[in-house]
Amino acid sequence: MTNFKRKSLSLPKTLTLGFIVIILIGTILLSLPLATKGSHATSILDALFTATSATCVTGLTLVNTALHWTLFGQIVIMLLMEIGGLGFMTFAVMLFLFMRRRMRLSTRLLAQESLNLDNLSQISVIKLILLLSLIIQVVGAGLLLIDFYPRFGLVKGAWFSIFHAVSAFCNGGFDLFGNSLEGFASDTYLLCIMSILIIAGSFGFLVWQDLLLYPRRHRLSLHTKLALGSGTVIGWLSVLVYFLSEDNLAQLDGQLSYFHRLVNTVFMAITPRTAGLITLPYQHLSIAGITFTMLLMFIGGTPGSTAGGVKTTTIGLLTIQSLATLRGKRDATFGHRRFTQDNIFRALTLIFVAFTILAVAVLILCATQPLPKNGGLEKVGFEVLAAFGTTGISLGLTPHLNVLGKLIIMFLMFIGRVGLYTVMFSILNANRKQQNYRYPEESVLIG
Amino acid sequence: MTNFKRKSLSLPKTLTLGFIVIILIGTILLSLPLATKGSHATSILDALFTATSATCVTGLTLVNTALHWTLFGQIVIMLLMEIGGLGFMTFAVMLFLFMRRRMRLSTRLLAQESLNLDNLSQISVIKLILLLSLIIQVVGAGLLLIDFYPRFGLVKGAWFSIFHAVSAFCNGGFDLFGNSLEGFASDTYLLCIMSILIIAGSFGFLVWQDLLLYPRRHRLSLHTKLALGSGTVIGWLSVLVYFLSEDNLAQLDGQLSYFHRLVNTVFMAITPRTAGLITLPYQHLSIAGITFTMLLMFIGGTPGSTAGGVKTTTIGLLTIQSLATLRGKRDATFGHRRFTQDNIFRALTLIFVAFTILAVAVLILCATQPLPKNGGLEKVGFEVLAAFGTTGISLGLTPHLNVLGKLIIMFLMFIGRVGLYTVMFSILNANRKQQNYRYPEESVLIG
Ligand SMILES: [K+]
Ligand SMILES: [K+]
Repeated sequence: MTNFKRKSLSLPKTLTLGFIVIILIGTILLSLPLATKGSHATSILDALFTATSATCVTGLTLVNTALHWTLFGQIVIMLLMEIGGLGFMTFAVMLFLFMRRRMRLSTRLLAQESLNLDNLSQISVIKLILLLSLIIQVVGAGLLLIDFYPRFGLVKGAWFSIFHAVSAFCNGGFDLFGNSLEGFASDTYLLCIMSILIIAGSFGFLVWQDLLLYPRRHRLSLHTKLALGSGTVIGWLSVLVYFLSEDNLAQLDGQLSYFHRLVNTVFMAITPRTAGLITLPYQHLSIAGITFTMLLMFIGGTPGSTAGGVKTTTIGLLTIQSLATLRGKRDATFGHRRFTQDNIFRALTLIFVAFTILAVAVLILCATQPLPKNGGLEKVGFEVLAAFGTTGISLGLTPHLNVLGKLIIMFLMFIGRVGLYTVMFSILNANRKQQNYRYPEESVLIG
Repeated sequence: MTNFKRKSLSLPKTLTLGFIVIILIGTILLSLPLATKGSHATSILDALFTATSATCVTGLTLVNTALHWTLFGQIVIMLLMEIGGLGFMTFAVMLFLFMRRRMRLSTRLLAQESLNLDNLSQISVIKLILLLSLIIQVVGAGLLLIDFYPRFGLVKGAWFSIFHAVSAFCNGGFDLFGNSLEGFASDTYLLCIMSILIIAGSFGFLVWQDLLLYPRRHRLSLHTKLALGSGTVIGWLSVLVYFLSEDNLAQLDGQLSYFHRLVNTVFMAITPRTAGLITLPYQHLSIAGITFTMLLMFIGGTPGSTAGGVKTTTIGLLTIQSLATLRGKRDATFGHRRFTQDNIFRALTLIFVAFTILAVAVLILCATQPLPKNGGLEKVGFEVLAAFGTTGISLGLTPHLNVLGKLIIMFLMFIGRVGLYTVMFSILNANRKQQNYRYPEESVLIG
C-alpha cells in the first residue's frame, strides 16, 4: 500500500477529488442556459449548490426542482443522484467491467476502498450488486408507473416513474412534484413502493453482498448483523416515537383515515435517516418530532450505502460498547463477536469530530444568516443536520441562505456523503513520517 | 482495592449516596415552614429541586431566592453550595483532620478518589487547600463588603457579601438580588472580584495542589498544564466570540460606556462554563450567543472543581487526539507528554454517553413540557445544558416545568456535579465477575 501511495494519490484523496469532479461537471451542465426554464441561466453558485445536493444525494434545494429546471436540468440532477448514490467508483468499476478490460491493481484497490469489500476476490460480486440495483430501480419505476400513468399520462408518467425510482433508491430526496410527496399522503400503494426502494437503497453494498452470498456461505458478517440490527431497532423505535409525539398525525384527522395516518407515521420513520421524501411539511411537526428527526438525521444510515450521518453501525457499536464499559465488562460483544479496539476508537473519534464540525457550522450560520429571533437555532440546527445526514428535509432555511451559508451547507453535504474520515484525511493527512521518539505517557482527569 | 470493595460500598456508590444524603437533608430543612416567607411551607418537590440545585452548585431556581426564602432558608442554600462546591468528601476529611483522628485506610482511599489526588501521601495537602479556599472566600467576602456596605448597610451588606462570595467561589449560581448581577453591570469593581472568585473556584483541587507545590517541585502535572491551557484557550475564544456575536453588547449602548460593555463581555465569557451569575438576561442575546453559551455549558470546567459538563480537559484532550488521528500521527501529545490510550478512550466514551443522555432528556422534555411552538427546542436545550453544566443560566423554562420536567433537570444537575461515570457506575456496575471466555474479534464499517 505504501508503494501504491507513493505512485499516485492516496485513496481518500482520489475519492474526494472524484466526487469534486462529478460535482463540477454537474455544475457546468446545470449552469447552461438550456438547463433552466425562462430566459436567465442559473448562477454558478446555485448550480454548484444543486449539483452538490444531487451528487451527495441530499435533496436540499434553493429552487423548486419541478418549476425551475428544464427536462435537461432534471435529467442532469437524476444522473448526479445515480452517480452519487451508487458511488462514482462503482461506476468506474462497472465501466471497466463493461469494457471487459482487466483492471489494473490500483483501480481494484480503489474500488475496494469505496465499496468497503473485505477482500479483492469479491470484486466480482459488484457486477451482481449493480445488476440488482438496476433491476430494483427498473422494477420500482415500473411499479410507480402503475400509479403515475392514470395521473400523468404515459410520457410524463414514465419520466416521473424513472426519476422518482432513482430518487428513492439512491435516497436522493429530489422530487418533481414541487412539494415532495405531500400530494400522496393517502396513496398507500405509492408510499409502500417508495419505502421498499428507500430501504433497498439504504442497505449498502456490503449488506447486499452478504445477503446475496448467504445461500452459499450460510453466515453473515458482524457488519451486516449490526447494520440490520441497528437499522431495525432504530426503525421501530422511530415508528413508536413519531406515533407518540405526533399522536398518530392527529393534525391530519379529517383529511386522512386512522389507517392512512398510521401509514404516514411509518413512512415518517423511514424517511429522515437518509431519504428525505416527505408527505407533510416538517414545520407542522411537534417540537419533540422535530428534535427526534434531528437525531435521526445525525445518525444517518448504513455505511457503504447512499446514507450520510455518523451511520447506524457507529451508533449501534458505541451503544453496545458504552453499556459494556459502564457495566464493567471487558469486551463489547454482539452476535458472538467482539468489536476490535481500533474499530471502537475510530467510531468514538468520528462522533466527536462530527459533533465539533456540526457545532461550529451551527454557530457560524447562527451568526451570519438572517434568522427569526424565536426558533432560529432550531431552523439552523435542522438544516445543518439535514445536510450532514444527506437527508434533505428542510424547515425552510436553505432558500434564504447567503453565500457563506450555501458554502457551509455544501461542505456538510459533501462530508456527509463522501465520509468524514475520507474528507478529513484528504485535507489534513500529510502522510508524514512517524517521529522516531515518543514522549512518556501521562493521564489527565476527565469528566 | 478489591478487598476494600468487598468490605463496603464501592467508591462511586459511596460518593453518589453521599450527595443524595446531603440533598435529602437540605430538602427537609428547606421544606420546614421557617424556611419559607409567608404562611405556606414549600412543597417537598420544590424543596428537593432547590436543594439539588444548591448542592449540585447549579443555580437553576423555581422560585426567586431573594423573595421566597427566609434568612434560614438562604443560609441552608449557602451551606449546601459550600458542601456541594468543596465536595462532601472534603468535608468528611476536614472533619477527620479537625478531630485529629487518624483516618482509617478506607476513608483515605475515598478522599483520594473524590479529590483526584494521585497518591495517598498527598492527602495532607488538602488541609492547605481547604485553608486556602476558606481564605479566598473570607477575603472575597471582605472585598465585596466594600461594595455592599454603602449600598445595603453593615448587617445586610455583610450577609450579602458572605452569601455571594460563597456562591461565586463555589460557582453556585444563586443570588439574593432577585435578578442575579443585572443591577451591577456598570460595577467593574464587583465584577472583577466576582470573576476572581469564580476563576479561583473553578481550578479544582489538583490544579491548586500543583500550583501550591510548584515552588518545591518545579513541575506541573499534565493534568494541570492541560486544564490551564484548555481553560485559557476556551476563555479567550469565548471573549472573542461574544465580542463578535453581541457586537460588544451593542444593545446596552446608551446605558453603558464602551469600556463597561467590554467588561461585561469578558464577564459573559467567564460565567457560562459553570458560574451562572449573569449581568444581563440571556433571552436578549443573539442566536449565535445563545448557541455558543450552550456549547460552553456542555464543555463545563475543570474536573475536580465545582464545574459540571464534560470538562475542559476532556475537550482539550480529544481535540488534540482527533487532530493527531486525522493527521496520521501515532501519538496525541501535549507538553512533552503523550496521553494514555485508556485516558483517551474514557474521554471519548464520556462524550458519547453525555450526548446520548442529553439528547434523550431534550426529547422527553420537548414531548412533555408546555412549550412555545417557536423556539421551544432552544429553551429546552438551553435549560438541559445549564443543568448538566451545573451553570444554572436559564432562558426561563425552569419555573414552568411539570413534575417530570423537574425530575429530569434534577437528574441532569446531579450527574453534572457528581460526574457521569460516578453515577453511571453506581447505577449499572454490578461488579460482575469477568467471563472466562472471549468471543473472536471482528470489525464493522463505521462513518
Ligand atoms: K436525501
Ligand atoms: K452554577
